[in-house]
Amino acid sequence: MAVILSDLPTPCLILDRTILARNIEAMAAHARRLGVALRPHMKTAKSIDVANMAIDAGAQGITVSTLAEAAYFARHGITDMIYAAGITPRKLATIAALNAAGADIAVITDDPATAAVIAAHQSHVRTLVEVDTGEHRGGMASSDDRLLAVAANLGDRLAGVLTHAGHSYAGRTVAEMADIAELERVGITAAATRLRAAGHTVGIVSMGSSPTVRHARHLNGVTEVRAGVYMFGDLFQAGIHTHAITDIAMTVLASVIGLRPAEHRLVIDAGGIALSKDRSTQAGPRDYGYGLVLDQQGRAAYGESTVVSAYQEHGVIACDPAHPFPLLRVGDLLRIAPNHTCMTAAAHDRYYVVQGNEEVRATWDRVNGWL
Amino acid sequence: MAVILSDLPTPCLILDRTILARNIEAMAAHARRLGVALRPHMKTAKSIDVANMAIDAGAQGITVSTLAEAAYFARHGITDMIYAAGITPRKLATIAALNAAGADIAVITDDPATAAVIAAHQSHVRTLVEVDTGEHRGGMASSDDRLLAVAANLGDRLAGVLTHAGHSYAGRTVAEMADIAELERVGITAAATRLRAAGHTVGIVSMGSSPTVRHARHLNGVTEVRAGVYMFGDLFQAGIHTHAITDIAMTVLASVIGLRPAEHRLVIDAGGIALSKDRSTQAGPRDYGYGLVLDQQGRAAYGESTVVSAYQEHGVIACDPAHPFPLLRVGDLLRIAPNHTCMTAAAHDRYYVVQGNEEVRATWDRVNGWL
Repeated sequence: MAVILSDLPTPCLILDRTILARNIEAMAAHARRLGVALRPHMKTAKSIDVANMAIDAGAQGITVSTLAEAAYFARHGITDMIYAAGITPRKLATIAALNAAGADIAVITDDPATAAVIAAHQSHVRTLVEVDTGEHRGGMASSDDRLLAVAANLGDRLAGVLTHAGHSYAGRTVAEMADIAELERVGITAAATRLRAAGHTVGIVSMGSSPTVRHARHLNGVTEVRAGVYMFGDLFQAGIHTHAITDIAMTVLASVIGLRPAEHRLVIDAGGIALSKDRSTQAGPRDYGYGLVLDQQGRAAYGESTVVSAYQEHGVIACDPAHPFPLLRVGDLLRIAPNHTCMTAAAHDRYYVVQGNEEVRATWDRVNGWL
Repeated sequence: MAVILSDLPTPCLILDRTILARNIEAMAAHARRLGVALRPHMKTAKSIDVANMAIDAGAQGITVSTLAEAAYFARHGITDMIYAAGITPRKLATIAALNAAGADIAVITDDPATAAVIAAHQSHVRTLVEVDTGEHRGGMASSDDRLLAVAANLGDRLAGVLTHAGHSYAGRTVAEMADIAELERVGITAAATRLRAAGHTVGIVSMGSSPTVRHARHLNGVTEVRAGVYMFGDLFQAGIHTHAITDIAMTVLASVIGLRPAEHRLVIDAGGIALSKDRSTQAGPRDYGYGLVLDQQGRAAYGESTVVSAYQEHGVIACDPAHPFPLLRVGDLLRIAPNHTCMTAAAHDRYYVVQGNEEVRATWDRVNGWL
C-alpha cells in the first residue's frame, strides 16, 4: 500500500524530487553556459541519492563540509572530493586513510605550517591554497606573501586555489551579487596567476557560492564552481533573488498540536531543533520568523502566516490576520518552508521523497554529525 | 591506553561528570527541601546514563520531549514518563504501543476533541490537562471553561494537570523569577482545585522550568516539578542567575582551523551546526555571540573572547582585545561554552565524558531526531 504524507511521523523533511531535479538541471545548464565545471557542495543535501542526481546531470566531483560526509560519499563510490574547511594535522590523517582505501579527497589550507605538515605526510594529499576574496573567514588575499609561502611549503601537493565569497549572502540586488562574483573571480584568478608566475602548476581554480555562481557575468580563468543550497533553495535565497519561493524543494512536515484561535495562533510540533534557530531572513527584505507556513501539499494557502517562536519542540505560528483562522484540528498537517535549508536539514536523518503529490516514493538517508 | 581530549575528532561534546553530578545533586536536594518530587526533563541530556544518575539521586520518573526519547528510555527500562508536548491522535497510537510493551507514558492535551479521542482509545493512556500559567504556548487558563470540557471528555484517563512557565526565561532578576514561579504555582493549583471541585480526581500537579523551580519560594499544592537544563547549564542560564558559569557541565571541543592575527581572530571547526544558531544571550545581560571561548581544559583563559560568527562548519572567534593574541597553532584545541545547551547538544550523537582532567572516561550516546 502506498505511503502518504499523513502516514509519516512528524516533524520530518519532505523533499520534492520534481523541483529538486529542476534545480539541479538549471544549475548544471548555467555552469555549462559559463564554461566551468560544477562541483556541487553536498553540505546541504548530505545524501548519496541527491549527489547521484547531480552527477547524472554532469557534476564533476563534489565538495564536502565534514569528514563524516567524506567517509560516507567515499563508501558510496564517489572518489573526487574537496573537503572545503581548513585541514588540521589530525584530520589530514583521516583523509589520507580514506584516500588509501580508494578515495581521492583534496584538502585546503591557508597556513604555512600546516602546508609543511601536508608535504611531509607520506600520503600525497592534493591540496588547494585557500584564498580570501572578501569574506575574511578563511584564506589570505592573493597579494599576501603567505600565498607564496603556503604554495612553496606544499611543493608537489599543490593542486590549485580555492575561494568562497560567502559575503555574497549580504548582497541584496542582482547587480551587487554580480559585482561580488566578479571580485571573487578576479581574486582567485589573480592568486592562480601569481602562483604560476612563481613557477607553480595550478590545475584547479575553484570559486563559488550559490549566489555568486548564479549571478556571475562570466568566469574567465576559473575552472570550477562550487554551490550547494541551489539544490533545495530556501527563503533566504529567495530574498536575495537567487531562488524562487516556488522552487524550494525541501520543507518540514509538521503536525498541529495546539489551537489558539483567540490569539489567531497555532502551535506545531516543529520547533527550534526541527526548523533550526536560523534567523537569516531577519536581515532580508522580508522576515519569515522561523519559516513560512504552507499547507499539507506545500501550497501557499495561509498568506503571510509564519512561525514566530521556536521552542525546542514547539513552534508557534502567527496566522496572517488578513485570512480567517485556519480550519485545522489537532493532528492536521502543515509544511514549513525553511529560512536556511542547510541548517534546517541538519537535525533530520532522512528525507521523505515525493513528486508533486502526497505519495511518498522513497526514503533517502542523510549523513549528519562528524567522525 | 587512555583516550585523551587530543585523540577526539572535532567538533564534539565534552561532558564533565564531576560538574554534572554536582548539578544533579543540587537540584535533587532543592526539590527535597521544597517537598516535591523531581521529574527531570530529559530533552537536554537525551542520555540513559544521565537519566540513571538523576534517578539514583532520587528523581521520580522523567519527562520527554519527543517520541524518539520515549521509545529510547522505554527500551532502557524507564517506565514512568510524561511526554510533555500536546498529543495528536497519531502520536497517541505510538504511545499506546510503547505502553503495551511495558512503559507507562502519560500524555498531555488542552484540546477537547483530542481528549475525546484519548478516552475512546482502547488503551488507557494517563493524560494530564495542559494549563497555561502565562507562557501562552500550550494550555488554557485555569479559569477557562475548556479546562472542565477537556477533563470531562478525558473521563477516567485524567491523571492530573501540568504547566510550564517557559516565560520565566524572559525574567532577569531572582525576584522576578520567584514571582513567575509563584504565578505558575497559583495557576496550576487553581486548575487542580477547580477540577477537584467538579468531582475529578487530580493525582499529579506538575509544574516547572529550571528557573522557576530554582527560585520558587514554596510549592504548596504542587506534587512534582520538571526541569532539564539545570543538569548541564549554559550561558543563558548564567545570565538569568539560574546557573553559575563554573557549573556548566557540557562544552564543545573544537579545533583551530585558521589564524587571523591581523584581525585578532581565530577560525574553528565548530560552526552553526555544532554550536547551534541559538542567540538567546543576545537579549541577556551579556551577549556571548555563539559561545564563550575556553581553553582545552575548559578554563576561562581567553577573557571575553567569543564566537562572533557561525557558518555551517566554521566559527569565527573575536579574541578579547585586552589579551594578547592566543599562542595557538592550526589543530590546537579550544572549548566553547554554549548559549543554550539543549540546542547545542541536539546536533551531536554522543558525549565524551571527562572528570575534571583530559582523560576520556566514557562515551555516552544521545537519542536525537524523531520517530
